[in-house]
Amino acid sequence: MTRSIILDCDPGHDDALAILLAAGDPRAELLAITTVAGNQTVEKVTRNARAVCTVAGVEGVTVAQGASRPLVREAIIAPEYHGDSGLDGPDLPEPTVPLDPRGAAELIVRTVMDREPGTVDLVPTGPLTNIALALALEPRLAERVRGVTLMGGAYTRGNRTPAAEFNIIADPEAAAAVFAAPWPVTMVGLDLTHQALADDAFRSRVRALGTPLAGFVEELMEFFTQSYARRGFPAPAVHDLCAVAAVLDPDVMTYRDAFVTVELTGTWTTGMTVTDFEGLLGRPVNTRVAVSLDRDRLWDMTVAAIERLGG
Amino acid sequence: MTRSIILDCDPGHDDALAILLAAGDPRAELLAITTVAGNQTVEKVTRNARAVCTVAGVEGVTVAQGASRPLVREAIIAPEYHGDSGLDGPDLPEPTVPLDPRGAAELIVRTVMDREPGTVDLVPTGPLTNIALALALEPRLAERVRGVTLMGGAYTRGNRTPAAEFNIIADPEAAAAVFAAPWPVTMVGLDLTHQALADDAFRSRVRALGTPLAGFVEELMEFFTQSYARRGFPAPAVHDLCAVAAVLDPDVMTYRDAFVTVELTGTWTTGMTVTDFEGLLGRPVNTRVAVSLDRDRLWDMTVAAIERLGG
Amino acid sequence: MTRSIILDCDPGHDDALAILLAAGDPRAELLAITTVAGNQTVEKVTRNARAVCTVAGVEGVTVAQGASRPLVREAIIAPEYHGDSGLDGPDLPEPTVPLDPRGAAELIVRTVMDREPGTVDLVPTGPLTNIALALALEPRLAERVRGVTLMGGAYTRGNRTPAAEFNIIADPEAAAAVFAAPWPVTMVGLDLTHQALADDAFRSRVRALGTPLAGFVEELMEFFTQSYARRGFPAPAVHDLCAVAAVLDPDVMTYRDAFVTVELTGTWTTGMTVTDFEGLLGRPVNTRVAVSLDRDRLWDMTVAAIERLGG
Amino acid sequence: MTRSIILDCDPGHDDALAILLAAGDPRAELLAITTVAGNQTVEKVTRNARAVCTVAGVEGVTVAQGASRPLVREAIIAPEYHGDSGLDGPDLPEPTVPLDPRGAAELIVRTVMDREPGTVDLVPTGPLTNIALALALEPRLAERVRGVTLMGGAYTRGNRTPAAEFNIIADPEAAAAVFAAPWPVTMVGLDLTHQALADDAFRSRVRALGTPLAGFVEELMEFFTQSYARRGFPAPAVHDLCAVAAVLDPDVMTYRDAFVTVELTGTWTTGMTVTDFEGLLGRPVNTRVAVSLDRDRLWDMTVAAIERLGG
Repeated sequence: MTRSIILDCDPGHDDALAILLAAGDPRAELLAITTVAGNQTVEKVTRNARAVCTVAGVEGVTVAQGASRPLVREAIIAPEYHGDSGLDGPDLPEPTVPLDPRGAAELIVRTVMDREPGTVDLVPTGPLTNIALALALEPRLAERVRGVTLMGGAYTRGNRTPAAEFNIIADPEAAAAVFAAPWPVTMVGLDLTHQALADDAFRSRVRALGTPLAGFVEELMEFFTQSYARRGFPAPAVHDLCAVAAVLDPDVMTYRDAFVTVELTGTWTTGMTVTDFEGLLGRPVNTRVAVSLDRDRLWDMTVAAIERLGG
Repeated sequence: MTRSIILDCDPGHDDALAILLAAGDPRAELLAITTVAGNQTVEKVTRNARAVCTVAGVEGVTVAQGASRPLVREAIIAPEYHGDSGLDGPDLPEPTVPLDPRGAAELIVRTVMDREPGTVDLVPTGPLTNIALALALEPRLAERVRGVTLMGGAYTRGNRTPAAEFNIIADPEAAAAVFAAPWPVTMVGLDLTHQALADDAFRSRVRALGTPLAGFVEELMEFFTQSYARRGFPAPAVHDLCAVAAVLDPDVMTYRDAFVTVELTGTWTTGMTVTDFEGLLGRPVNTRVAVSLDRDRLWDMTVAAIERLGG
Repeated sequence: MTRSIILDCDPGHDDALAILLAAGDPRAELLAITTVAGNQTVEKVTRNARAVCTVAGVEGVTVAQGASRPLVREAIIAPEYHGDSGLDGPDLPEPTVPLDPRGAAELIVRTVMDREPGTVDLVPTGPLTNIALALALEPRLAERVRGVTLMGGAYTRGNRTPAAEFNIIADPEAAAAVFAAPWPVTMVGLDLTHQALADDAFRSRVRALGTPLAGFVEELMEFFTQSYARRGFPAPAVHDLCAVAAVLDPDVMTYRDAFVTVELTGTWTTGMTVTDFEGLLGRPVNTRVAVSLDRDRLWDMTVAAIERLGG
Repeated sequence: MTRSIILDCDPGHDDALAILLAAGDPRAELLAITTVAGNQTVEKVTRNARAVCTVAGVEGVTVAQGASRPLVREAIIAPEYHGDSGLDGPDLPEPTVPLDPRGAAELIVRTVMDREPGTVDLVPTGPLTNIALALALEPRLAERVRGVTLMGGAYTRGNRTPAAEFNIIADPEAAAAVFAAPWPVTMVGLDLTHQALADDAFRSRVRALGTPLAGFVEELMEFFTQSYARRGFPAPAVHDLCAVAAVLDPDVMTYRDAFVTVELTGTWTTGMTVTDFEGLLGRPVNTRVAVSLDRDRLWDMTVAAIERLGG
């Protein structure tokens, strides 16, 4: 079963892995990569997305730049995890992949509306600004996509604040609109992605590929490992990779249904994905929430994709 | 001095007058009419905008439909003021003015970016969804427009709630983004527009024109007068007309500088335009706030525009 | 008709006038003066309350000190209006009036519960901390008092922020509890008290009394006038005086019924007394809101009280 | 080492166990039991507290009734866990223990201030209304107690809402004041107490005691087990017992330092104890947070206390 994916991202080390999986997995048709301000400014992450494509030999995928800031709030970035470039570690080549002149939101609308209903998966792995904009420009998007599988949120604890995960707090209004819209949403949040720590077992498998792309991934993971080590993690969580994996192979994780909404008015909790598994709030289920990961299966498909790209 | 105007509206009886002034005043070049869900659904108000153009013999102005709902929240409408059609009262003709295939936000971006910097006035007289979307799609809009002159808000009391005016509470996140952006904003709020009660003095001058368009305006005012009478007003406030007037003839009102922001987290006050004339909040001025109206001057230009259109 | 009053205050120049009216008007039985942190720390305002009594020759009234800080938030004070002592201007004598060992909340409970139901008026003219505490300690207070007539709030604009008046924002949770409780509340807010500017007409009448107390009042007004001049007022608003006057002579002002609640969750509006005259919120009326003042009548009773005390 | 405890509770099945441990453990001097509206109305929980004392033969401990409602909000109760009486299951005897005429807050203030500084532990196991009131009446309490060890909150997920635990959301403003005050706070929240499931291992040890009190406890646990079974728990969490245990034997659990504050303005998260272990918010540590329980040790001391009381 092939999945047609629009990957909306802000690379970002783990976004880079997400691109590689979406570009290299045989089950994926990568329709477009769109970018959004998040881990770094939109100019930087767009450059990074294109550079990753260049390194990986990914040609022909449309890349379009999107929102430079959140819908309502001031922009925040995450250099403490991803460095000044947003993709510190390896030397990045000059991108050769062209940049589409259209904006990300426009491209998303056009791509989805031009294809058969129920065939496109949106996979946002950064703040949800572009997705919310696309939805505002074309509300029929909600019935037209196959679903939205996003990396973001958490049902226990956040990482940017005790309550909020970075992608959600970076544009909470956009996230609220995405969860509220009548499309199938899968939330791949921190509770899942903190099970995807890119440990030596994974890294040594990548290294063993011996390709230049494998070397690039290793350099990314080396930098990312150090970022996470400073926060007490034994290895870095490759969050965004998980969202792509969930689309290509849903069985790589398990899920629970919940009502999810985004706190917008908290003094301390804005950006929290309030996740009601138990029906305490009396609201209908609107989200499939990822809870447990088959990590080996994730590494298998990721290593295979890197191998395939670099072959 | 001619002003090039994009009128973003949700007609609405007072929006209808705003269209007539923008179309009929010799100082106005009406570049486009864009529509937004507000007083009624976006389909209804778009139909109304086009019908008003048809009645007034306004040809050649681009009309584009915009957002069908707010950025984040559920839509609200105002049938208690404007009736089920959004423009109850007169029989509306079948519109002959074509509808542009582009969305309002896209049209706004394109129109502003294609013209000389500093030459286009945005005049939103409905919820600010389209304006916020346009700004999100193209942040350079903020430096490119001559200014934004909006009907909305209040610095004392609201009309939809004790704290909030309808256009702002209908999409408070959009409004917050508009006030926060680095463009010149003029707020024509309730404190000003409640000075623009379309009383018999005005209505008899319109009636005296004796044209079919004058008759149409009279039918609008008749219905609108009854709506306001139910709320204890001696005559209806023609809010949106004032915003167009402020652009064409700034001296029709006086202004005070203030920092204005929109409350987004209040239990009772969301949608309030918090207006700090005195610098109590220590924020820099970002808005010119209309405070007092030269009503005769407003009626003069409005009657003249109706006369000119109907001539 | 005599009114039995507990004056809960934070003197404060206008509180000082409130004490003089409550102590000197023949219609008032001043049961107790209780103090609360507000214009200055509770120690300072307690000293000030006692000093005012001493200057005015008021003996035998119970004075008790109350809350040193709000229920939940950090304390704020208002030295920009009242100076470092809270009552800058005149030299204050060493107080001779004793301080009751009981806390204000306890004293309020005891005093009200020991008297006939429906006979005691609570007149808070500072933050509402003591009143909320008394109510929490003894919920039956709500049925036992004759009413609560408070100086605080506004139905158009605030003075500490664009939305909030000082006494309310100083302890918004306490204020919310007071408005929500099932007792008759009269709100004498800024819209009323800004009609009570202690101008030369008033001050010259006081001066003409020629008593030491009149001289003391004149020194208070001289300092207070300068504080308000810095904010662009031609004369100082003697807010708290109005609340006492409303109890002793309800006809000194007019009122409108409204539902009033206090915003507690606003980013910009916390402490606002949201006042719904029109029933927009669909809540039952819970407050009598003062709207217009008979200023001459206020000056008459105030001058008479000062004269009577000094006689 | 003896600990002098004021147990402020809302019995409640687990509060009943807390009373038994505080009354029966040789390391505890139970100075007073104060009650607060929570699991049921204050009248019901006061009756329950006294009935538990009667069943357990606890004489001479002061019992005082406290707040009947939260500081600001409407009261909520928890009959779904504790039944209509608040202590459903066993037949409750008519209480023989007298009720102190003083209110809980007043009693707490008096008891703490009358004893040596640093000798009294406050152990609130219900909503924090009484504690906040006592602190407001006498701010020196903060330096005078040995500490506050409260059952409430959570650092991952709530039980009343996805974000909030019952005791905190029942009076979030009171809780915010308690966490903000400069006294040592230990938070024994759901993450800890859900490790204290009163399973058959515990219950059979109690039953084996064969005393009437053991039978009473068994009847409580039988009802409580059914309440929790309806929510998918294999056994009921005896939350409040843990807080008393933490005071008497700190080694029964482990702790992590954190800054803790209570969300007061969330649309979905009010009452959440935002717990910052990592310093993400840049605030100083103010709370010791219980994280892991030595369950056997808890059962040992609890069974021993029941045995000792029933001896």
